[in-house]
Amino acid sequence: MADKWTYAFGVGKAEGSAAMLDLLGGKGANLHEMSSIGLNIPPGFTITTEVCSHFIQTQGEYPADLEAQVSQAVQALEATMGASFGACENVLLLSVRSGARASMPGMMDTVLNLGLNDKTVKCLAKTFGDERFAYDSYRRFIQMFGDVVMGVDHYHFEDILEDYKFDHALKLDADLSGEDWKNLIPRFYEVIEEESGRPFPTHPKEQLWAAIGAVFKSWTNKRARTYRKLYNIPDGWGTAVNIQAMVFGNLGNNSATGVCFTRNPSTGHNEFYGEYLENAQGEDVVAGLRTPQPLSLAHAKATDMDLPSLEERMPDLFAQLNTVRKTLENHYKDMQDLEFTIEQGRLWILQTRTGKRTIRAALRVAVVMVTEGLIDKKEAICRIDPTHLDQLLHRTLDPDADCEILGHGLPASPGAASGKLVFTSDDAEAWTARGEEVILARLETSPDDIKGMISAKGVLTMRGGMTSHAAVVARGMGKPCVSGASGISIDSAAKTLTALGETLVEGDLITLNGGTGQVMKGRVATVEPQLGGAFATFMTWADEIRTLKVRANAETLADAVAARAFGAEGIGLARTEHMFFHDDRLTHMRSMILAGTQAARLEALDKLLDHQRNDFVELFEVMQGLPVTIRLLDPPLHEFLPTRLRDMKSVAETLGVSIEDVQARAAELFETNPMLGNRGCRLGITYPEIYEMQVRAIFEAACNVQIQDKVVLPEIMVPLVSDGREFALMKALVDRVAKDVLGEYGLKVPYQVGSMIELPRASLKAGEIAKEAAFFSFGTNDLTQMTYGLSRDDAAPLLQAYTDKGVFRQDPFKTLDQTGVGELVQMGVQYGRSVRPDLKVGICGEHGGDPRSVFFFHKAGLDYISCSPFRVPIAKLSAAQAALGVDFEDENA
Amino acid sequence: MADKWTYAFGVGKAEGSAAMLDLLGGKGANLHEMSSIGLNIPPGFTITTEVCSHFIQTQGEYPADLEAQVSQAVQALEATMGASFGACENVLLLSVRSGARASMPGMMDTVLNLGLNDKTVKCLAKTFGDERFAYDSYRRFIQMFGDVVMGVDHYHFEDILEDYKFDHALKLDADLSGEDWKNLIPRFYEVIEEESGRPFPTHPKEQLWAAIGAVFKSWTNKRARTYRKLYNIPDGWGTAVNIQAMVFGNLGNNSATGVCFTRNPSTGHNEFYGEYLENAQGEDVVAGLRTPQPLSLAHAKATDMDLPSLEERMPDLFAQLNTVRKTLENHYKDMQDLEFTIEQGRLWILQTRTGKRTIRAALRVAVVMVTEGLIDKKEAICRIDPTHLDQLLHRTLDPDADCEILGHGLPASPGAASGKLVFTSDDAEAWTARGEEVILARLETSPDDIKGMISAKGVLTMRGGMTSHAAVVARGMGKPCVSGASGISIDSAAKTLTALGETLVEGDLITLNGGTGQVMKGRVATVEPQLGGAFATFMTWADEIRTLKVRANAETLADAVAARAFGAEGIGLARTEHMFFHDDRLTHMRSMILAGTQAARLEALDKLLDHQRNDFVELFEVMQGLPVTIRLLDPPLHEFLPTRLRDMKSVAETLGVSIEDVQARAAELFETNPMLGNRGCRLGITYPEIYEMQVRAIFEAACNVQIQDKVVLPEIMVPLVSDGREFALMKALVDRVAKDVLGEYGLKVPYQVGSMIELPRASLKAGEIAKEAAFFSFGTNDLTQMTYGLSRDDAAPLLQAYTDKGVFRQDPFKTLDQTGVGELVQMGVQYGRSVRPDLKVGICGEHGGDPRSVFFFHKAGLDYISCSPFRVPIAKLSAAQAALGVDFEDENA
Repeated sequence: MADKWTYAFGVGKAEGSAAMLDLLGGKGANLHEMSSIGLNIPPGFTITTEVCSHFIQTQGEYPADLEAQVSQAVQALEATMGASFGACENVLLLSVRSGARASMPGMMDTVLNLGLNDKTVKCLAKTFGDERFAYDSYRRFIQMFGDVVMGVDHYHFEDILEDYKFDHALKLDADLSGEDWKNLIPRFYEVIEEESGRPFPTHPKEQLWAAIGAVFKSWTNKRARTYRKLYNIPDGWGTAVNIQAMVFGNLGNNSATGVCFTRNPSTGHNEFYGEYLENAQGEDVVAGLRTPQPLSLAHAKATDMDLPSLEERMPDLFAQLNTVRKTLENHYKDMQDLEFTIEQGRLWILQTRTGKRTIRAALRVAVVMVTEGLIDKKEAICRIDPTHLDQLLHRTLDPDADCEILGHGLPASPGAASGKLVFTSDDAEAWTARGEEVILARLETSPDDIKGMISAKGVLTMRGGMTSHAAVVARGMGKPCVSGASGISIDSAAKTLTALGETLVEGDLITLNGGTGQVMKGRVATVEPQLGGAFATFMTWADEIRTLKVRANAETLADAVAARAFGAEGIGLARTEHMFFHDDRLTHMRSMILAGTQAARLEALDKLLDHQRNDFVELFEVMQGLPVTIRLLDPPLHEFLPTRLRDMKSVAETLGVSIEDVQARAAELFETNPMLGNRGCRLGITYPEIYEMQVRAIFEAACNVQIQDKVVLPEIMVPLVSDGREFALMKALVDRVAKDVLGEYGLKVPYQVGSMIELPRASLKAGEIAKEAAFFSFGTNDLTQMTYGLSRDDAAPLLQAYTDKGVFRQDPFKTLDQTGVGELVQMGVQYGRSVRPDLKVGICGEHGGDPRSVFFFHKAGLDYISCSPFRVPIAKLSAAQAALGVDFEDENA
Repeated sequence: MADKWTYAFGVGKAEGSAAMLDLLGGKGANLHEMSSIGLNIPPGFTITTEVCSHFIQTQGEYPADLEAQVSQAVQALEATMGASFGACENVLLLSVRSGARASMPGMMDTVLNLGLNDKTVKCLAKTFGDERFAYDSYRRFIQMFGDVVMGVDHYHFEDILEDYKFDHALKLDADLSGEDWKNLIPRFYEVIEEESGRPFPTHPKEQLWAAIGAVFKSWTNKRARTYRKLYNIPDGWGTAVNIQAMVFGNLGNNSATGVCFTRNPSTGHNEFYGEYLENAQGEDVVAGLRTPQPLSLAHAKATDMDLPSLEERMPDLFAQLNTVRKTLENHYKDMQDLEFTIEQGRLWILQTRTGKRTIRAALRVAVVMVTEGLIDKKEAICRIDPTHLDQLLHRTLDPDADCEILGHGLPASPGAASGKLVFTSDDAEAWTARGEEVILARLETSPDDIKGMISAKGVLTMRGGMTSHAAVVARGMGKPCVSGASGISIDSAAKTLTALGETLVEGDLITLNGGTGQVMKGRVATVEPQLGGAFATFMTWADEIRTLKVRANAETLADAVAARAFGAEGIGLARTEHMFFHDDRLTHMRSMILAGTQAARLEALDKLLDHQRNDFVELFEVMQGLPVTIRLLDPPLHEFLPTRLRDMKSVAETLGVSIEDVQARAAELFETNPMLGNRGCRLGITYPEIYEMQVRAIFEAACNVQIQDKVVLPEIMVPLVSDGREFALMKALVDRVAKDVLGEYGLKVPYQVGSMIELPRASLKAGEIAKEAAFFSFGTNDLTQMTYGLSRDDAAPLLQAYTDKGVFRQDPFKTLDQTGVGELVQMGVQYGRSVRPDLKVGICGEHGGDPRSVFFFHKAGLDYISCSPFRVPIAKLSAAQAALGVDFEDENA
């Protein structure tokens, strides 16, 4: 088969099929397929993508026997059509269209009405008895061929046309007669020869080869290359060329052309949806000079269109088209987007492909098609892009609303919010207290801003990345946040925000889209999340299929409730430090840190113990029966100390110490690289009393809840472990305190102690750590930071440069770097399980909510993933797809 | 053999040998060996270390048949000696001594004169006709046994003795007669029974078993456990017990006891070196009440001793001892440290072991022994601890000088220096200008302190680690530095330094020992490095044997000259940023960073270009014929900006910008975690013009030097690479600029472009990087930081806590963490070479100068190591040992 370069189709037969996508391209394969199942397709043949590859590799040459095969194929087509290409009896015109494996709409070239010259145009006029149609087709061909094949810009033709209209006092193209077009054609020829230095080829065969070459060349034109880069389509794929007999939708009022979807692409409802133009060619629809008419009466009514529908105008053809619609859906088992032409009362199908749709429509189509028996649940699961679910899960901007973009930052916490600008947390509280909705804008946030963030509807920061304080806290609150909006500047003292040369003042309305990072002026309308029946049905199927468990990252009551609501199977990460950022806990925390004596420190810890115990009681109650993984204190202590002089003063007053003491302690705790400093279990080694308090709080809470006959499953997680001995020390601490508390209560509470794996060394030494650890949880945020040696907080400008230069093809903080960081994950799993075969392994970094990362975690053999509550459905669907073998190519490999 | 617990030796025979070190312990094995080769050893037997293990495991029990074997061994000993243990005819006394596999001097227990009681003491008096000797031996035995075996502290006996002396108006022990000692013995018995609650065992066999048990128990006493922990001796080894017939050096003037070295342990000269006491037992030498006499006449003369030598007093015995000395050296092929006793004109050898010596002596002994044919070069190479060479390579404190320690910090840059305290760089310059020698003391240093550091003899900082600015710059300058001396506080404003409650003021003398981290008050005498002939000879042998190449880290002219002097085979790391920290370069660098426009930036870069070109010309000239690896700019730009307001003002003035501009730019460049920020090749991506300038400087310099017919071998190294595409971009930049410059000069300069491997991801993606990189250089400082997630600058307090808790058994920043960081090194080598089999691989972190790390790098298959010039000999010797198979146990594994 290696020297078969052309594949014929038409009249119920085809040499190819839909399965031959790689060889015939998308359009071609579907033309063959439709022909095979008896649809009325303009006959023709496909020149394969292999010819394109050959053409590119040889810089413009064709395989030796291609010419003969094309000639044969054209002859066969002439025989089928009973017409003749280039001769004058029943003249055959051709369309020459590109068609790559992946759809690249508008990127490559097409030539229609090919085969016309001064002689054949007369035959065409004679065949259809319509001179104007013939010369109009001729001049369209010359313009298109001149532009696409000969490189003469279309404005040259338009200039000539405008001059002609002016000279002859004509206004619209429609006003020109056949004679007019005939007069124009020599001028078109002239300008082509002038501009290109070559005469227009009049021989149809010459035209055909020039058009074929132009299509192949268009594969490597700039816009196509850019498009492929953008959508990650390999350059090596190449395009096929589809050559078909022309059919005409512009042969009078019993002719038409249109496009349609087999179901409503906005809602997914099983209704015929589309539009058409009478007496028109496809390009007229695109040109937008005429308003298209609806296909169905129902559609016309539903949209209040007062144009007559195809159903009314050509009921018979509408019925035929409706049959085609059902045939195609039954055959392809998916919603189709198709193009058709009616030539003097005869229906021709020009193209079919999978129809694009909204996520809401996609869910409904998938679920309904399962009930219709068209597809099975597995197929339905694989049809939905998990990331698209995000659109359903948050309050979002109304897609139809107008908006004025001020700038953008990082999409730090999804959802949309509008409110009045405030610049301090105190203002946020005060304004909210008097009933205003506010957006808090700050250079960056600190623990002092917690109350302001709670009050605000959304948070905007100029600095900080996806794991900055603002981002993490906002995600925890399920509150929209845009961080690191470096293009926007704020003056906190003057209470102004400046962007794009415009200055907003306190109280001005702005809107944040935390899902995209956009910042907009004024209030933009938003819509509530709607989790319809199709969504719920769909998610139960995902649950049936997946093997990866899905937990949520949650530490507040609200988060835990949301987690259960979204179907989380436990908490995979409760960050205890977030519990210290509120109100009086922060005061106690600061007292503890500033304590001059062990006694004073223990007193402060005692007060924190009460709060922590209550926090854990709430968590355990909400999550009863499900595991709750609690991570011991992780951030460096200085994060709890105030940074602003005013706050330092207030802290000093509250604690009854001098401001110098506060400053001195802050200086003492200062670290050049806090990310690499005294944090995580290093705090447990250097200040064991803090971890002891936390463990005591966990077990006192567990006992208190278990006494109420509720099942409590605490899993205690030690952060930032780098060594087996280090973990063993921490486990011994946990076991000792647990034994004490359980002894005091006289209870048994089953618990596990496990290790975060978030340092490269933890992966490398996983075997040693697994000797004592009952479970691992990969902290892929930190693991990515350490493996790349790149601080996410500082990375924003770098990420941009690295993306621009093509080093990063995907953000490694968003999608796990499989072959780098991922190798450490695999090593950690392998080394850990080699020592402890039943080691439970999870992941609790941001990557837990990223589908492509989830596919990887499934392959890596993890037991569970944990992500923010709002991403649980996304993670579940991703896990289900992973179980069905869905995978992706690592673009950063 | 499993039930053989005792091994006999003596009179030219032995059941064991030196090879049975594990079973017989060091002392025992050598006694057997000496006996075999015919030396006169007091006969006896060894109870094996296996018995000790059994004793410890069973908590005090002996193997079933041990008693029978010991009885047999004692009987055999009685037969050999023609004496009787416990009987009265020719009484046999025993010594019971410990002897572990590794020497643990003074850690474990010994009992001498065992077998005495009220009856046998009389026989002893009779046998030797000396009652005073007998009763003196008896009371010594009771005191020693009472203390060691029965746990009665020695002061009880001393109190009784003092009372007795007072009552009898006696002053010295020597004043007591036999009768006096006889009178004291019942009182000793009394206090023992009082204190221990048990009577003193009078039966010799009972005494023997109690002493054996006490020796075994002493293996687990606290000081022995501490010692083992300190010297990393496994607890499981256990000790042997050596039981020998007693010989007496205190039987009159034809008796003596002494210790000697077969060569001079200070100089290594082949001369008999040692001292002895006439009419004394070993413990008298230790007690220090009498001044020992020299062995040889030559020694006596050389040291101006006016005591007669053994050579004069007992020429015959001196000759015998000298023969023993030669026999032992010929047999052991190393310098020995031996103990002997002369009993009434007969020479007995009590112990031999490898003699401790200074590094200078060790080198001379090794080299001379090769010329003497005693050992071969390989053996000589393995005999020297590479780290000891460091003592030879820097000006060091006179080991005999008194000193008053003020405190200590990290040994940041070796060498010793004294000078007057100054607290600012300006003062350092000013004082030096007027001829003072100063030590610069600062909280921490910044680029503004460079001139002060150049002026000062040494640098002391309160903050910062081994890679702090002060440490790195000082090492680069080969200048002593103690960093992070957190126990010392300074008040820069008041110009005072406070330590241990004492306050020093500006101008007070202090001394730094950069090799140990000690800070001393006043001036402490120092000695110049002396690289004698033995050192040079020795190093040529190391060079013959090693396969790892050794380069130096150097960027200044002085460093490069030192590197060549120490035999470096090229420069493995020239840190270009250090070149920017001086004077007007810093100004240009700051202009470049602060430049508002591209034009202004390029102008500043143009000025830097001139400086850099000159720097490289110097380097290439000094290093002609050898490769010079130049690392492109590595640190974040903000490191070049001033941090102090005063300096900011000065910079703003110099550059003609406002101080607000300087502050704003500094704020803009601020990073939360600079170690993980915009540095290394990220600068090359974000500010390509900087790297372009540097590459241009390199190639212009190379051309200028090559024109002089000198061979230039530049290797350009890209720092902080994490990805193959990233490296490819940088390589393209280098190649492009190189082509431009070489084109301008019309020259060809062979060069290579390689990658630092200092991020975990670089190791993981080494295969991708090696596609374009001609060489790798592991930056193990950063690799360790990233793999552990631990900033070396912030780690000092943590390292202490982690060492105390036993998590870190060696500092991973000093000795490579083989099984963690090392696995990444191995992966990097393997992945890289799998793509490029001839990939050149080196290492340029601090670990390059650490012997145990060098052993690992040899095993890992590296081609070269690079370290600071002063550590090149250490690295070379380590490499030679590695080639000979020397290895070490990774304690952190």
